[in-house]
Amino acid sequence: MSFLKGSLNYVWCTTSVLGKGATGAVYQGVNKHNGEPVAVKTFNQLSHMRPQDVQMREFEVLKKVKHENIVKLLAIEEEQSDHKGKVIVMELCTGGSLFNILDDPENTYGLQEEEFLLVLEHLTAGMKHLRDNNLVHRDLKPGNIMKFICDDGRTVYKLTDFGAARELEEDQQFMSLYGTEEYLHPDMYERAVLRKPVGKTFGATVDLWSIGVTLYHVATGNLPFRPFGGRRNKETMYYITTKKASGVISGTQTTEKGSIDWSRELPENCQLSYGLKKLVTPVLAGLLEVDSQKIWSFDKFFSEVQTTLSRKLIHVYYINRMQNIRIYLHPDETADELQTLITEQTDVSAHNQILLLKDTHLLKVVEKTTPGRGYPSTQEDGPVLLFSTENNNVTLQPESGIPKFPTFLSLTAVENDASSAKTACSVGHVCKRRVEKLSRCSQLSHYSVKVFTAVVGEELECLVQKCDSLKEITNCTEHLVDAVSRATNTIHSMVGVKSEAVIPDCKEELRVLSKELNGTLALAIQQLHQRFVTERTLTREWSAATRTISCPAASRAPAKCKTLVERLRDSWQHLLRDRATRSLTFNDEQFHLLEKIKVAETGKRIKVLLDSECQPAVTQLAECLADWYKMAQTAFLQARILDKDVAAYEKNLLNFISAVSENDSKYHEEIAGVAKVKITSSNNNHVGGIKQDLRSIRANLRELSSTGGSISNTLDENTSLIVQCHAVLNEEDGIAAES
Amino acid sequence: MSFLKGSLNYVWCTTSVLGKGATGAVYQGVNKHNGEPVAVKTFNQLSHMRPQDVQMREFEVLKKVKHENIVKLLAIEEEQSDHKGKVIVMELCTGGSLFNILDDPENTYGLQEEEFLLVLEHLTAGMKHLRDNNLVHRDLKPGNIMKFICDDGRTVYKLTDFGAARELEEDQQFMSLYGTEEYLHPDMYERAVLRKPVGKTFGATVDLWSIGVTLYHVATGNLPFRPFGGRRNKETMYYITTKKASGVISGTQTTEKGSIDWSRELPENCQLSYGLKKLVTPVLAGLLEVDSQKIWSFDKFFSEVQTTLSRKLIHVYYINRMQNIRIYLHPDETADELQTLITEQTDVSAHNQILLLKDTHLLKVVEKTTPGRGYPSTQEDGPVLLFSTENNNVTLQPESGIPKFPTFLSLTAVENDASSAKTACSVGHVCKRRVEKLSRCSQLSHYSVKVFTAVVGEELECLVQKCDSLKEITNCTEHLVDAVSRATNTIHSMVGVKSEAVIPDCKEELRVLSKELNGTLALAIQQLHQRFVTERTLTREWSAATRTISCPAASRAPAKCKTLVERLRDSWQHLLRDRATRSLTFNDEQFHLLEKIKVAETGKRIKVLLDSECQPAVTQLAECLADWYKMAQTAFLQARILDKDVAAYEKNLLNFISAVSENDSKYHEEIAGVAKVKITSSNNNHVGGIKQDLRSIRANLRELSSTGGSISNTLDENTSLIVQCHAVLNEEDGIAAES
Repeated sequence: MSFLKGSLNYVWCTTSVLGKGATGAVYQGVNKHNGEPVAVKTFNQLSHMRPQDVQMREFEVLKKVKHENIVKLLAIEEEQSDHKGKVIVMELCTGGSLFNILDDPENTYGLQEEEFLLVLEHLTAGMKHLRDNNLVHRDLKPGNIMKFICDDGRTVYKLTDFGAARELEEDQQFMSLYGTEEYLHPDMYERAVLRKPVGKTFGATVDLWSIGVTLYHVATGNLPFRPFGGRRNKETMYYITTKKASGVISGTQTTEKGSIDWSRELPENCQLSYGLKKLVTPVLAGLLEVDSQKIWSFDKFFSEVQTTLSRKLIHVYYINRMQNIRIYLHPDETADELQTLITEQTDVSAHNQILLLKDTHLLKVVEKTTPGRGYPSTQEDGPVLLFSTENNNVTLQPESGIPKFPTFLSLTAVENDASSAKTACSVGHVCKRRVEKLSRCSQLSHYSVKVFTAVVGEELECLVQKCDSLKEITNCTEHLVDAVSRATNTIHSMVGVKSEAVIPDCKEELRVLSKELNGTLALAIQQLHQRFVTERTLTREWSAATRTISCPAASRAPAKCKTLVERLRDSWQHLLRDRATRSLTFNDEQFHLLEKIKVAETGKRIKVLLDSECQPAVTQLAECLADWYKMAQTAFLQARILDKDVAAYEKNLLNFISAVSENDSKYHEEIAGVAKVKITSSNNNHVGGIKQDLRSIRANLRELSSTGGSISNTLDENTSLIVQCHAVLNEEDGIAAES
Repeated sequence: MSFLKGSLNYVWCTTSVLGKGATGAVYQGVNKHNGEPVAVKTFNQLSHMRPQDVQMREFEVLKKVKHENIVKLLAIEEEQSDHKGKVIVMELCTGGSLFNILDDPENTYGLQEEEFLLVLEHLTAGMKHLRDNNLVHRDLKPGNIMKFICDDGRTVYKLTDFGAARELEEDQQFMSLYGTEEYLHPDMYERAVLRKPVGKTFGATVDLWSIGVTLYHVATGNLPFRPFGGRRNKETMYYITTKKASGVISGTQTTEKGSIDWSRELPENCQLSYGLKKLVTPVLAGLLEVDSQKIWSFDKFFSEVQTTLSRKLIHVYYINRMQNIRIYLHPDETADELQTLITEQTDVSAHNQILLLKDTHLLKVVEKTTPGRGYPSTQEDGPVLLFSTENNNVTLQPESGIPKFPTFLSLTAVENDASSAKTACSVGHVCKRRVEKLSRCSQLSHYSVKVFTAVVGEELECLVQKCDSLKEITNCTEHLVDAVSRATNTIHSMVGVKSEAVIPDCKEELRVLSKELNGTLALAIQQLHQRFVTERTLTREWSAATRTISCPAASRAPAKCKTLVERLRDSWQHLLRDRATRSLTFNDEQFHLLEKIKVAETGKRIKVLLDSECQPAVTQLAECLADWYKMAQTAFLQARILDKDVAAYEKNLLNFISAVSENDSKYHEEIAGVAKVKITSSNNNHVGGIKQDLRSIRANLRELSSTGGSISNTLDENTSLIVQCHAVLNEEDGIAAES
């Protein structure tokens, strides 16, 4: 009965603990009026022994902050009990803290990319709000970042625990010590942990160092600075953090007094993509910087993170390596930069990249000049597809090894068993992700084949249409050439002017030209179309080749693996409970042993699923894909060449039409000139002359006939006239020629 | 310690009860060697009192059956205890029985369509296996149908409990009584429940009746035959089942001694689609048939179910009603039947249906003759889209009302509170499905707009291309016509033969013809293209109109509703536990009251989400869609008309080209003839004649000149010759015309 506590508007039960700290505890409570669950923070005796102003600070800070990424204050009320202590009522973050999340075997190697980005975004936004209000948190760490799950299922990370927070201008300093040692700035560490009496004061930038350590932890599942032996090895910890070079983001000591492994890169097993690692690494380096001159300012940090978050994520599936890649395109960058970023991760140079999205070329969906922010959204399972025009081979990208499942000691070692089971879960999750990746690989390969086939088909359809249209134009051109040729012949036969001089033999020229279309191009297009559209060769070959491959997606391998990993988790939870129980009954011990057997068996099944089912299937698929792509790429390139040929033919044909028409026009102008001289002059002038002459003859003869005098002279005159006339008519004769 | 029981290979704990019956209990157990969970059936004292052959029957039957849809026998072992009773070890069905599933408030109105079909398929397959082995089950009911969840997450329903089963040929009879009264065939009911000493024997068809009752229960969440007062009203129960007419599938008495509401249809609130109800109702009517002559045979039942299950499900979204419909197309049926089935559910006649799939017309994805089995698979969120060419309005399909959330009594009524909370859950699930439906509606509307816009755009692009190609052909035709015209003019000017007689004025004709393309068609196409492709009017108008509408999908209403319903379920579970506890502590009572408040508050929030968020948003969307579709449909129809016009123009143009070419060819033939007569004869014969004449004149004159005698006569003769010659030359003159 005494477990039930209450304030004016809330009740809580002291058995529902969410967390305990030095100065108090947090319980899950309920709003009395609507049943909404809340978190209630109460304070213990120790906390009341702090100076009054320090005690009030947390309330002051909480009242001052109001931001989506900071846990919301609902009320400050008095507990309805004898000591009337103040309680802080806050919204309940049902997802627990980031510390709990990182402790889960699912996240042994850090969070997945999307979740990491969410943490980065929310942590940064929350910090910005604090900075804008001149507040230092002084105890930033995964345990103080809560996961709030909204009604609509979205996740929001929120900063909490302002017990160490205070107001501080960016250039102000403070002296007191707060924080958690792994996340502590080296200067504070020196005084707080090593207890060296250095008179240093600390600035707001101590939060930046903590953010750096936190982000590294979130990205990798591990702390960045790890002396051998952990917390006990404080001198080495201090050595690592203070002696590390600029740009180094982690230092690990793996043997007693051994040397430090420095690294400027995130580790291989971290789940972030190459594309994101490239952006995050400089941020970590900027924050994990002991030199106060070199450590990033808050502004630099905020703006760099802002830029990173504003980048457009473009998922790309690179078929020749069966590899998912992620490109973070700056919102102002365009296709050229995208291609450069792709080259960076694939070695496929820009002009060898075939980029497809949905069922078409990427550059039909976006313009060359479309900025990153205007790009359509892509998904891991709906990416931009990358094919190389140059490389027609497919080789599965090799993967780093998978950690081994642990073996259990045959004795009941309750203490060990739970942590072995946890390791098994952790390995199980790695395997599960690998199975999912292989499954996605196989699905995307099938999808890529479908899309590539569709694009080739579409291009061939388009070519056939162009070809048909060109045939109609060619046909019309033939009619044109025939008409011109007929006219030329007719006129030639009339005028006797050789046509060759004016108009070349266009019929032959067209025959030669259209032979390219009708003989070569149309046939090639028709054959390609027949093979790849009508007979669906690409689809059929692919189906035939892959029919016997049991694709991990089709055999539901990811779902199977999920079930198996859940089984591991159930067993782990069982063994955890057994560990908490300490002494097991005979009955419990039997089931404890069975759970261990189950973990071992389940681990084996997962390995079989991954190594003997999924991996071989995808390897086999890669071989099929290599064969298939050799054919598909040839078809694609042939279509591309034919497309150019068709365009060239079209250009030639249109030029030819203009030329024929122009020449014909010229010919008729010239013919008109020649004919005018020839025909008009001969018919009008010459025949007119004859008529004139004959008229004279008739008049003369009439005169001769009437007078009868001096006939001789007149007759001679007339005779010469007639000779002249005869000559003209002879020449005229030539016009009609031998018809 | 005594809870732990074991056999050779299995252990189980008597605290893990899965179910208890008259003759024994079923426990969850574990395989000792690999930790696999199993179900172990043990027998009690009562069971051992049955005749030995009856006791052995269950083992015999279980050894005989081996089918995916019958719970698998793993072993029959002896319990390692004093009495060494036999135990049956079976695979564990982790999904519980169909009875538990139907009891869940999620399924108050029956299972969802996909799950119903799964039950139908698996139940039928299991029954077929029994029938093939001449077995009767005799106790078919939801409680004996188990849900097995595979490693890969798939569900398989399996028949279990063969305690009442025995071998029986289809024509054999049995006398003993088994079964559960609600699912009992009326003849068995009469003897078993009403205890009438009728000497009837029963055949294997008693299982069919039980299947009918079970399927009705699964489809609707209720029993088909419900006398007022339930089990206690046995006479009415018997009356209902035996007096019901053929075809009636349910009879309900809602008042004491009231009349029976008969129905031949499945109820309104059942979750099955119209398309499936139409197929399932006759099956139910065939099974729930008391007349032994009319009840379906096993073969009829199996084959009808087989046909139903072989049908291809085609999801259709009917935009003008914003309604999802489901068509079950027979595997042999083609597009015509699909259209007829669509008309049946939408009143859109076949020729007014625009059917789109993905980004194109359905009939570009399948052939007219593609049979149902060859249709691509569609999804609820990736359906065939149906637009009407005739109806350009959009009216949201009205929905049946939603049941009200229950109100709690303000007192702590532990008994009532749990069942009120269950009702609240049940209503919550109805609301959730409605929210999901509205969300899907709004998503599909956005999707439909996108697809329709893409199709119109694609058609306009295609039109522009055709138009461009026709322009090129027209251009070439102009060159042809020019050439012909030039030639005609030239030849006319030479030969003086009127061209009109041979070749019509094709230049004018082409001008008129191409005016259609250049003046009307090209302009209309270009304007449409400008408006709907370049300016993206359809997309922009839609975005502008819907920008302020908070689409339920975008505001994540389904996820919110899911969270709220889960909260209701949590509260219900809490109140259930409280009911089981019977007497609550003060502490518990406080939380009990809070849970009731929570249920009421959550119910209110769900109502607000549905009635004030989702419903108004979709109503508003329907209005936008109506406006939008008026414009879009016009664009679509215009494009369709233009496409026909373009095709007609193309045909006319090609005909024109042939005609011009043919006429030109004829003209040249004729010209060649005329020119031969005119030119050859005139030049050769006539001019030859003149020359001959002139030669005669010359000779005569020479003679005249030399002799000098009888000039008069000779001169007269020569004069008439010259007149004649002059006439000929005058005529010749006509050929050269006025040049």
